[in-house]
Amino acid sequence: MNKAARKAERRAAVDARLEDSRLWAEGVLERLLPPAEGPFATLHEAMRYAALGGGKRVRAALVRECCRRFGGQDEDAAPFAAAIECVHAYSLVHDDLPCMDDDDLRRGRPTVHKAWNEAIAVLAGDGLLTHAFLLLSRVRPVGAEAVLVLADAAGSRGMVGGQALDLASNSKAARQQVETIHLAKTAALIGAACELGALAGCARPMERANARDYGVELGLLFQAIDDVLDCTADAATLGKTPGKDADLDKATLVATVGLEGARAAAALHAQRARDLAASLGAAEGELLHDLPEALLGRRA
Amino acid sequence: MNKAARKAERRAAVDARLEDSRLWAEGVLERLLPPAEGPFATLHEAMRYAALGGGKRVRAALVRECCRRFGGQDEDAAPFAAAIECVHAYSLVHDDLPCMDDDDLRRGRPTVHKAWNEAIAVLAGDGLLTHAFLLLSRVRPVGAEAVLVLADAAGSRGMVGGQALDLASNSKAARQQVETIHLAKTAALIGAACELGALAGCARPMERANARDYGVELGLLFQAIDDVLDCTADAATLGKTPGKDADLDKATLVATVGLEGARAAAALHAQRARDLAASLGAAEGELLHDLPEALLGRRA
Repeated sequence: MNKAARKAERRAAVDARLEDSRLWAEGVLERLLPPAEGPFATLHEAMRYAALGGGKRVRAALVRECCRRFGGQDEDAAPFAAAIECVHAYSLVHDDLPCMDDDDLRRGRPTVHKAWNEAIAVLAGDGLLTHAFLLLSRVRPVGAEAVLVLADAAGSRGMVGGQALDLASNSKAARQQVETIHLAKTAALIGAACELGALAGCARPMERANARDYGVELGLLFQAIDDVLDCTADAATLGKTPGKDADLDKATLVATVGLEGARAAAALHAQRARDLAASLGAAEGELLHDLPEALLGRRA
Repeated sequence: MNKAARKAERRAAVDARLEDSRLWAEGVLERLLPPAEGPFATLHEAMRYAALGGGKRVRAALVRECCRRFGGQDEDAAPFAAAIECVHAYSLVHDDLPCMDDDDLRRGRPTVHKAWNEAIAVLAGDGLLTHAFLLLSRVRPVGAEAVLVLADAAGSRGMVGGQALDLASNSKAARQQVETIHLAKTAALIGAACELGALAGCARPMERANARDYGVELGLLFQAIDDVLDCTADAATLGKTPGKDADLDKATLVATVGLEGARAAAALHAQRARDLAASLGAAEGELLHDLPEALLGRRA
């Protein structure tokens, strides 16, 4: 088998593994979200709509794979995966609001503030964020540790802080600024997903740190590729309007270091992620090993 | 000394105690909120503006008093008090948004979305909520327990759920519905303040439950009085426009059971709170004992 065929085979294996985790994550969320009944049915319905509204569930997959890597069971990983997906879903609901990115559609369906109204969207986001911490708090004995990891990554020095920086910046931002945004807005939460998985699998502190660093590199890789695709892909392949970053005068890696610079940054993050996967003991054929290359090669 | 004079004296003692706790809480928050510097300075400044923007700090006072009641030190109570006040502050920032209550002023200053913009207000609220859980997660060994208590009271079956119900209801709501709203929107968090204080003071499970129930009764009392004052007080005494609930067709106790019915409900909650204060061992002259009567007698 030649190199290209092996590559295609590995990518197909990654896709199959992600699809398996996606189905698992949907089941976990279905079970761990509050039911759309009782006095708070409307709010719970909006929360479920937001959190069960599709998506690739890469974060949940990373929780699960990192947990397995250290000998944990899927059932150990479940509340951690649900918590990460709740936080991701809440961030999308709030980001879609008219005062932020003002998006009417998300994954082909009306956004929460369109399907209900803005007040319900703010509250559904607040409810999902709080629910994530509720889920983690029930995990013994590492609940407090897990809350610390998630709150740190999702809070004002992590995801929320990154979103604030992103809104305030423009295409003239320095490279350092763009990296801070990517790190805080995206990579911190993906790092937390990997660290929570390791925590669920009872990994040692050094292993936890390596898992987090792996996730951070993946997140930076993901963002770098995102910036590249926004400039190079056509709308049909991308599934959304390309060139949006430039139109919105966004701070991107491409605006700062050019297309080749962004591609080089992506390759560097992929290399670092592969090295960290090796340090976690992930071999070829395992998702953690093969995911960086698959992300590097993505076209949409 | 006659009865009226004793009552006035007790009320003055309550005010002095609350003022002392207010100053303590300001110092704790000043120290435990993220500093307005570094890459996330703008967001942190908005978070500090919202959380340090005045207020009576009744919730922090309850954390502190309940902690003391079981022999804990103020320093034990500090992160719990800060977390409760962060959650309260976040709820006000989001409630003030144009899509919710649309308020331009809060405690005489521009609301966060007026002083900055709506996006920063959404994010500052998100940041404060997440910071509350971060603070609790660092408390050992009861961090996970504390997160559970707060997430339960603040989440989609508590404060956030109550706000959603309140927005969806009107003055034709049944008494049961109004009580569910009061319980979820206000009383649950005040119950959590008392339970967290008891937890900080290493109270036993039954004592924690009594402390929570005491806070819940206080919260219901507070809401009942609020509904009464909105109908009876004049603007100068109240410091805000009275009659707003009726104008907005809000679900209130007065709309449901009339003014006397609401006064009777308040008296009942005050009596239950006093009984629970006694079960916690709080004697006359202690804030926990004297607060129900002081709230019952408030004119603004």
